[in-house]
Amino acid sequence: MRSDAKFSKATVRRAPARISKERLFRKIVIIGVGLIGGSVGMAARKKRLADTIIGVGPRADELKRAVARKAIDRFETDLRKLEKTVHNADLVILATPVGQLEAVARELAPCLSEGTVVTDVGSVKGYLVRHLEEYFSPDPSLRSLFVGGHPIAGREKSGIEAASANLFTGALCILTPTDRTSPEAFKKVQRFWEAIGIKTVSMEPEAHDRILAVVSHLPHLVAYALVDTALELQSKSGDLLSYSAGGFRDFTRVASSSPEMWRDICMANRENLLAVIEAYEKTLDRFKRLLVEGHAEGLRREFERAKTARRKFN
Amino acid sequence: MRSDAKFSKATVRRAPARISKERLFRKIVIIGVGLIGGSVGMAARKKRLADTIIGVGPRADELKRAVARKAIDRFETDLRKLEKTVHNADLVILATPVGQLEAVARELAPCLSEGTVVTDVGSVKGYLVRHLEEYFSPDPSLRSLFVGGHPIAGREKSGIEAASANLFTGALCILTPTDRTSPEAFKKVQRFWEAIGIKTVSMEPEAHDRILAVVSHLPHLVAYALVDTALELQSKSGDLLSYSAGGFRDFTRVASSSPEMWRDICMANRENLLAVIEAYEKTLDRFKRLLVEGHAEGLRREFERAKTARRKFN
Repeated sequence: MRSDAKFSKATVRRAPARISKERLFRKIVIIGVGLIGGSVGMAARKKRLADTIIGVGPRADELKRAVARKAIDRFETDLRKLEKTVHNADLVILATPVGQLEAVARELAPCLSEGTVVTDVGSVKGYLVRHLEEYFSPDPSLRSLFVGGHPIAGREKSGIEAASANLFTGALCILTPTDRTSPEAFKKVQRFWEAIGIKTVSMEPEAHDRILAVVSHLPHLVAYALVDTALELQSKSGDLLSYSAGGFRDFTRVASSSPEMWRDICMANRENLLAVIEAYEKTLDRFKRLLVEGHAEGLRREFERAKTARRKFN
Repeated sequence: MRSDAKFSKATVRRAPARISKERLFRKIVIIGVGLIGGSVGMAARKKRLADTIIGVGPRADELKRAVARKAIDRFETDLRKLEKTVHNADLVILATPVGQLEAVARELAPCLSEGTVVTDVGSVKGYLVRHLEEYFSPDPSLRSLFVGGHPIAGREKSGIEAASANLFTGALCILTPTDRTSPEAFKKVQRFWEAIGIKTVSMEPEAHDRILAVVSHLPHLVAYALVDTALELQSKSGDLLSYSAGGFRDFTRVASSSPEMWRDICMANRENLLAVIEAYEKTLDRFKRLLVEGHAEGLRREFERAKTARRKFN
């Protein structure tokens, strides 16, 4: 009988043990449940990474839609209840627009329980990571439980309706630990993204910003500038845009991204952005000179070189 | 009996009459059977617009594939047989790259039968239309049977394998008649495109080039310049491109278009292109100044304006 009792006891224990192994986290809080925050929630719920995922944001209607879309289990709009909401959370994910991160950090920092790890998904790191680190870990002698992160994904649409559990399929998340980051906090955040199915890579916050200035921020600025130029020329020359084909439509798609979000990203990374705009203007000047001089072969070579970059993605 | 005879005779006549009504053309010749020429052939065959569509080009293997893909019925690679090939054709469509149009026109012009209408699909019109008109209709006292045309469609891939009968679905064809164009020739070309299912619009060749400089040629140049800039910065800063997300990939797609084709288009339209590059540089300068001055609201307004252009296409 004893061995039977033992057996049944072990069985009973094993079940929750297996569940807690599957569920890496008990409680995750996502602050800002839009395209990225919502997609993170959907992917985490799909993978059953947490017992509870709570969404925090200002608008109940959007958060209700996030519950309906299975991005979160429940939500809270009242910031006065933030301390209760994040109480004993394993992980808090900041997924508000970049321009709101510092204000959110200021509200959140005093509410956190001991041991709660915080990460973000902002498109700019650099000084922002240094600032957030100060909010969350003001004592410089202690390791910081804040870990900067940036899952590189996105689309021109925003909001919970555009979110998808598959937004991050094949994506890469850049993590930006500093010399103050707690190795345990770093591992927790890394495990979170990898459990969702995203590869992670680490680099300094400043290195992240130099790279993203080239591969993301400049392309958006260039697309906005191109479409604005077409609109200006249009007002002089009649209905240009109705004649637009392939190339131009791709640009208008990129340029339909959220103006507020891209204003904040460009402003937050403006030094790197200004440097790459200058490099870009030099390239344009070179193209112009080839056109003026009628140097067809030189122009072909420039185009050929750009074409080779495509192979990276095939 | 007489009425019966009459009836059967009329029936016999009616049948071929109906066929010739369905088949607008007896013989169409497409010179250059790549993405555009092949797609035109496929669409024309699908709509049964001609009794015979003959492809002309330098490479038998590609033309065989064009036959297999139902873009043409048969083909000719031997230019010495050009006169026989185009003999009594209703319509000859020049679909070679822009850079080869004049050389082809020089070969073709002496081979044409009386009454054969010629059109092209080139992305540049302007002086090219004036030149082609001279090749095909050297006598200035006579109406010209050449009609410039540009079906606005395309993709970054080229060649017959990328062709599709649906490439022109929803597309627009700009026709560029001059004061010398024969109204009958114009109507014939217009009827051809409309029978394929493409809307047509007419304007002066020079107006076409001013518009396309903005909505097509500048976007391609900008994409090539952006990708080239990223490659330059990459060689300084390591493997940037592996971090690229949405925006940049769209640019690399546009920048993977044929370097030879875009060299020729940019060179052929370089005056308009230089003018729009300058307008574009002014916009970029304005953006830079807003960044330097930290004028976030000004930047947001610029982005917001660009975003509105998108509505044109939804």
